[in-house]
Amino acid sequence: MIIFGVDPGTNITGYGLIEYTNNKFRQITYGVIRLPSSKTISEKIEIIYAELDSLLKTYKPDEFAIETAFYGKNVQSALKIGYARGVSLLAAIHNNIPASEYSPREVKKAVVGKGGASKDQVNYMVRAILNVKKIKFKPDESDALAIALCHAFRLKTPTFKKSKSWKDFIEANPGRVLNS
Amino acid sequence: MIIFGVDPGTNITGYGLIEYTNNKFRQITYGVIRLPSSKTISEKIEIIYAELDSLLKTYKPDEFAIETAFYGKNVQSALKIGYARGVSLLAAIHNNIPASEYSPREVKKAVVGKGGASKDQVNYMVRAILNVKKIKFKPDESDALAIALCHAFRLKTPTFKKSKSWKDFIEANPGRVLNS
Repeated sequence: MIIFGVDPGTNITGYGLIEYTNNKFRQITYGVIRLPSSKTISEKIEIIYAELDSLLKTYKPDEFAIETAFYGKNVQSALKIGYARGVSLLAAIHNNIPASEYSPREVKKAVVGKGGASKDQVNYMVRAILNVKKIKFKPDESDALAIALCHAFRLKTPTFKKSKSWKDFIEANPGRVLNS
Repeated sequence: MIIFGVDPGTNITGYGLIEYTNNKFRQITYGVIRLPSSKTISEKIEIIYAELDSLLKTYKPDEFAIETAFYGKNVQSALKIGYARGVSLLAAIHNNIPASEYSPREVKKAVVGKGGASKDQVNYMVRAILNVKKIKFKPDESDALAIALCHAFRLKTPTFKKSKSWKDFIEANPGRVLNS
């Protein structure tokens, strides 16, 4: 399965593609779309959509994962990030690729184990999980790869079925029973 | 000249098309795209893009005007409004229609004469300018028509050329000379 992760921004949009097979992860490609400050927001969203559309058509991923939520306090920044996220999501929709959204906290928790992890910690763990410690990912690249990995972990982990009793719980979740 | 005005939102997106010829304004069509709260943000932006794209292909406007800025304080609302605005702007770009952005204050000032005008005042003045006092526009429709009218007024008013002297100013702006 190929998963496309994207971290859209109006200055830099990072992306990363991973392949997830037999419980192993491998990066296929990764990069950044630079959006010069001389460009208008219209020009920027046109570039983001066109570049992502081209990547999606080239690599044909099975799943698309994007960051949601915004923790800053600046309303105007949130608005502009929304422009970038909206057109990124639209590129996935137009290519018929199922899209999932994760908050930055969920991504950090999935990859590093704590929601408040730093960018450096995310970068380190992405390299460790992909077993490519020699590659120096840019922060926006490792963030995008982390989003893709977060989605892979989510797909990997079956959600527990809600059970009415312990008997039902044990039947629904045999993997949770400790054999002592 | 045909101008398309749009007021994108994640619950309701209003739109209005006006024709502006010989200093007269006429509404061509107007309406709202309703986005049920049961739909996900992905489904909503897909609908907004598809509906606007269809309207732009049908009416082939010469100009596209959209609201910019956001005065609320809720960062998450700003983010979602950004999704809607981003894909609306993208529909104009993909149809090669020049897009202009106006703040709500600019729109109200252009149509009502004061930046702090109420929705009712905007509604009243839109009907007065279009000379259709019998039509009861919904607030999102009159807002969208107001954005289109605001853009028409902007195109109508030539911006003054910067001049070094009064002689230059008079030569550059003959319309400003009073014939007493």
